[in-house]
Amino acid sequence: MSQTLSELAAFLQSQGMPCEVVGDACHAIGSVSTLEDATAEQVSFLANPKYEKMLMTTQAGAVVVRTGTPAPRPMNLLQVPDPYAAITMLIIKIHGYRRHPRMGISKMAWVAASATIGKGANIWPFATIGENVVIGENVNIYPGCFVADGCRIGNDVVLMANVVLYDGAALGNRVTIHAGTVVGEDGLGFAPVGEKWEKIPQVGTVEIGDDVELGANCSIDRATLGKTTIARGTKFSNLIAIGHGCKIGENCLLVAQVGIAGSVTVGNHVTMAGQAGVVGHINIGDNATLAAKAGVTHDVPTGETYLGAPAAEIGQKKREWALIHKLPDMRQKLRKLESLVEQLQQEIHELKGRQNQD
Amino acid sequence: MSQTLSELAAFLQSQGMPCEVVGDACHAIGSVSTLEDATAEQVSFLANPKYEKMLMTTQAGAVVVRTGTPAPRPMNLLQVPDPYAAITMLIIKIHGYRRHPRMGISKMAWVAASATIGKGANIWPFATIGENVVIGENVNIYPGCFVADGCRIGNDVVLMANVVLYDGAALGNRVTIHAGTVVGEDGLGFAPVGEKWEKIPQVGTVEIGDDVELGANCSIDRATLGKTTIARGTKFSNLIAIGHGCKIGENCLLVAQVGIAGSVTVGNHVTMAGQAGVVGHINIGDNATLAAKAGVTHDVPTGETYLGAPAAEIGQKKREWALIHKLPDMRQKLRKLESLVEQLQQEIHELKGRQNQD
Amino acid sequence: MSQTLSELAAFLQSQGMPCEVVGDACHAIGSVSTLEDATAEQVSFLANPKYEKMLMTTQAGAVVVRTGTPAPRPMNLLQVPDPYAAITMLIIKIHGYRRHPRMGISKMAWVAASATIGKGANIWPFATIGENVVIGENVNIYPGCFVADGCRIGNDVVLMANVVLYDGAALGNRVTIHAGTVVGEDGLGFAPVGEKWEKIPQVGTVEIGDDVELGANCSIDRATLGKTTIARGTKFSNLIAIGHGCKIGENCLLVAQVGIAGSVTVGNHVTMAGQAGVVGHINIGDNATLAAKAGVTHDVPTGETYLGAPAAEIGQKKREWALIHKLPDMRQKLRKLESLVEQLQQEIHELKGRQNQD
Repeated sequence: MSQTLSELAAFLQSQGMPCEVVGDACHAIGSVSTLEDATAEQVSFLANPKYEKMLMTTQAGAVVVRTGTPAPRPMNLLQVPDPYAAITMLIIKIHGYRRHPRMGISKMAWVAASATIGKGANIWPFATIGENVVIGENVNIYPGCFVADGCRIGNDVVLMANVVLYDGAALGNRVTIHAGTVVGEDGLGFAPVGEKWEKIPQVGTVEIGDDVELGANCSIDRATLGKTTIARGTKFSNLIAIGHGCKIGENCLLVAQVGIAGSVTVGNHVTMAGQAGVVGHINIGDNATLAAKAGVTHDVPTGETYLGAPAAEIGQKKREWALIHKLPDMRQKLRKLESLVEQLQQEIHELKGRQNQD
Repeated sequence: MSQTLSELAAFLQSQGMPCEVVGDACHAIGSVSTLEDATAEQVSFLANPKYEKMLMTTQAGAVVVRTGTPAPRPMNLLQVPDPYAAITMLIIKIHGYRRHPRMGISKMAWVAASATIGKGANIWPFATIGENVVIGENVNIYPGCFVADGCRIGNDVVLMANVVLYDGAALGNRVTIHAGTVVGEDGLGFAPVGEKWEKIPQVGTVEIGDDVELGANCSIDRATLGKTTIARGTKFSNLIAIGHGCKIGENCLLVAQVGIAGSVTVGNHVTMAGQAGVVGHINIGDNATLAAKAGVTHDVPTGETYLGAPAAEIGQKKREWALIHKLPDMRQKLRKLESLVEQLQQEIHELKGRQNQD
Repeated sequence: MSQTLSELAAFLQSQGMPCEVVGDACHAIGSVSTLEDATAEQVSFLANPKYEKMLMTTQAGAVVVRTGTPAPRPMNLLQVPDPYAAITMLIIKIHGYRRHPRMGISKMAWVAASATIGKGANIWPFATIGENVVIGENVNIYPGCFVADGCRIGNDVVLMANVVLYDGAALGNRVTIHAGTVVGEDGLGFAPVGEKWEKIPQVGTVEIGDDVELGANCSIDRATLGKTTIARGTKFSNLIAIGHGCKIGENCLLVAQVGIAGSVTVGNHVTMAGQAGVVGHINIGDNATLAAKAGVTHDVPTGETYLGAPAAEIGQKKREWALIHKLPDMRQKLRKLESLVEQLQQEIHELKGRQNQD
C-alpha cells in the first residue's frame, strides 16, 4: 500500500511536523530503508551529518533531511526540522508494529488446568504454563516459554521464544520480553560456612511494570526477600544482569551487557550505556547517566553523568584523563628542571667560591 | 504455620546462636521480608548500619538486630550477635528451599529408549533426553532442557527451564543449573589458515562437581581435549562465560558477567566480582579475590586481591590511583617550581653581574 | 580405529608437514588428549613452552613437539615444525567433526505447512518452524529452536538447542549457531517523547554469511531498517551482543562477551578479545585488533591494535601506562626539587646579603 511523497508530507504535518517536498511530490513510497540499502520505492533519512556524502549515491526514492538541506543532485527530499523524529513517525505509519501470527492456544502447549488465560491469547507449541498462573487478554507466548506456577501476566504482553518466568513473577500490561531472557532466577545468595557456601533460600519475587521492554538473554534475579522491581516504561537491551532486590525506576534505558549487583536503587529516567556495572547497595539518582563501561562504586547524585572505572563525575574524570595525557610533557619538564637546578647549584657554588676569594 | 518470637529465639539458640527477645515474645511470625516490605506477620533484619533509619518506619512484626541495638520506639526485636547469619537460619527454618512440583516423567517429554533415569524424577514436557544418558535419583528437569547423548547426571540435580547440556557432560550430585545456561558448547577453537579460520574439533567434555550451582544464561565451553572442570561447591551467578579447558576450583564464588578465557586454572575458594575478566593460560591462586571489572593478565598469587584493568595487587593499584588523583597538585607544584627556578636564574644572573662589577 | 605413530607421521607428511618419530614408531594411538589427561593410547602436544615440565610427568603414548625438542626421558615424540598446526590436523584426522544423530523430521516438532525443507534434515522434537521458511539440505535443527516466519536457511546449517531466529533472518551455508543464541531480536530503538520512550518499529533483518559460527547465548539485533550483517567465515564465542544495523566483515574472530553498539562497521579479519566494547556509528578497519576489555570510542584504522578504556593505539597506551607506573618516581623527584630549590633560594639570599655587606 504505497503512498506519495505529498501524502507522507501531509501526514507529518498532521502530526505537527512542518514538511516541504523537494522534487516529485507524486513519487510513490512503499517502505522505509537505509541510505545504503534503499531502492526507488523506499524513503530513507539523513540525521547524522557524518553520512551526508551518501546523498550523492543513495538509490532511495526520497530522503528525509533537515530543513535547509539542499538536494546535491536531482532527487526527492522531505525537508523537516527533525529528520530522526520524522522517520520514526514514517516507520510507524508505513510499517506499524510487529504483528503476531494467529495461533490460539496450541494443543502442543502444556497449560495447567488451574491457569487462567484471558481472551485473544496466542500460546504457541512447546510453551508451558504452570499452576495458578493468571494471564490477561491478548497475550502472545511464543514457543519454548516457561511461565512457572503463580505468575501473573497483564494484558497485551509478549513473551518471545524461550523466555522463562520463575514462580511468582508479576508482569504489568504491554510488557515485551525478548527471546531467551530469564526473570526470577535465584540470585547469588550464599552464606559462608567455613570454606563452604550455604544457600540462602531466595523467597522474594520479581515485579515488572507496564510498558517495560526487556531485550534478549537477560537475567533478572528474584529478591532474596521482598521484590526485585523494574518500573513502568523502562527499556533494556540484551544480555543485562540485574541482581536480587534491585529497584529500577521508570523510563530508564539500559544498553547491552549492563550489570547491576544486588540491592541497588535506580531512579527514574536513568541511562546506562553498554557494559556499565554498578556495585551492590548503592543509589543511582533520577536522570543520571552512566557512560559505557563505567564501573560505579558509590552513589550517583541526581542528574549527574559518571564515567570510567572506578567511575567519577564526568568533569572530574575528563580532567583526570587530560592530565594523564599531559604526563609525557610533565616528565619532560621535570627533567629539564632537574638539569636547570643542577646547573644553578653549580653556578651558586662558583659564586660562593668567588665571594670567598674576594 | 506461624511461630512466636520466643519459638524463633529458641530455634536460634538451639543452632548455637544467642538470642534475646525485646518486646512481645508471643507475637506470631509467618514469613520473612525486607524492612521496606515487611508486614506485622513478618520478621525482617538489620545487618547493614546504612539502613538503621528504617527501624523507625518498618511495619515488620519483628526485626533481627545486632546484640546491643536498642529499639528506637516500641517494637519487637530479636537481638543476636550476627543478624545476617540469624536471618539466613530463619529463612531456611520458615520458608525452606524451593519445592519442585510433582510431574513424574511427562509423556510430552522426549526420552531416548537407551537413557537410564533413577527413581523420583520429574521430567517436564518438552525436555529432551538423548541416547545413553544416565540420570540419578530425584532429579528435576524442567521444560525445554536438552540433555544430549551420553551425559551423566547425579542425584538430586535440578536443571531449570531451557538448560542445555551438550553430549558427554557429567554432573555430580545436588547440582543446580538455572534457566538458559549452556554447558559444553564448542569453545572458540579455530586455527588460522591464510585469512580463514579452520575449525578445530572440540573433542573434550565438561565435568561439574557436587553441590555446584550455576546462574542463568551462562556458557561453559567443553574442552578442546580433556575436560573443562568446575569443582564441588562452586557457585556462579548469571551470564558468566568459561572458556575451553578451564579448571575452576572448589567453593569459588563468581558474580554476574565474569568471563574467563581458555585454559585458566582457578584455585579453591576464589572470589571474582562482577564483570571481572581473566586472559587465557594463567593461574589464579587459592583464596584470591578479583574485584569488579578487574582485567587480569598475569598469574594471581594465593590469597591476593587484584583490582583494575590491567589488574594489579590491590595495594599497588590503590597507590597508583591515589597518585593519579594527586596529578593536579603535582602539575601545580611543577609550574610553581618552573617559575621559582626562572626567578633564581634571574637572581643568579644579577649576582654574577654584580660580582663582575666588583 | 587406532593408528601407529609412523602412520600418523606419514599422514602429517602427506599434508605437507615434516615429521620425525622419536621412540617406538609402532606405538598405537586411538585419540588425542591433553598432557595432563592423556593415557598410553593417546597422543598429546606441547606448543606453549610454559608447559614443558609436563613432558616429565605426562602419561601420553606420544607427544607432538617442536622439531629439535629432545625427549627428557624415554618416551615417544612426533617432532614437527608447528606442533599446534600438527595437533589440529591430528584431531581432525583421528576424531573428525561433530556427528549429528539421525532424527529425520520429528513428529514432535511443529512445522508450518508452508515451510520448505531440503532433503537430509534432522529436525528434533520441540523445534518450531514458521510459515514460509525455506531450509536447505542436510540441516540439523535441535530441540527448542524457533525459526520464525520467512527465515531462509542454507545447506548444512546447524542450529544447536534453543536457538531463536526471528522472522526474516537469512543464514548462508554451513552456518553453525550454538545453543541459546538469539538472532534478529529488536534492537534498543526508542525515541524520547517527553520522559517516555516511544518504540521505533525495527523493520530490518539479519543476514549471516557462509561458514559463520556463533557461540552460545549471543544476541544479534535485527536492523531498524535494512540489514544487520555478519559476513562469511566470521567466528563468535559466547555471550556476544551485536547492535542493530552493524556490518561485521569476513573472517573476524570475536571472543566471549564482546559488545558492539548499533551501526558499527567492522572490516575483514578483525580480532576482538574478551569483553571488548565498541560504541555506535564508528568504523573498525580491516585486520584491526581490539584487546580484552578495550573500550573503543573512535574509528580504528586498518591493521592497528587498540588497548584500554577509553582505547588508544597500543604504543601510545603502553607509554601512558608506563608513565603512570613512573608516577611514584616523578613525585619523589618533584619533592626533591622543591627542597633543592628552597635551599638554593636560601643560599642566594645569603649570597645577596654578603654582596650587600661588601
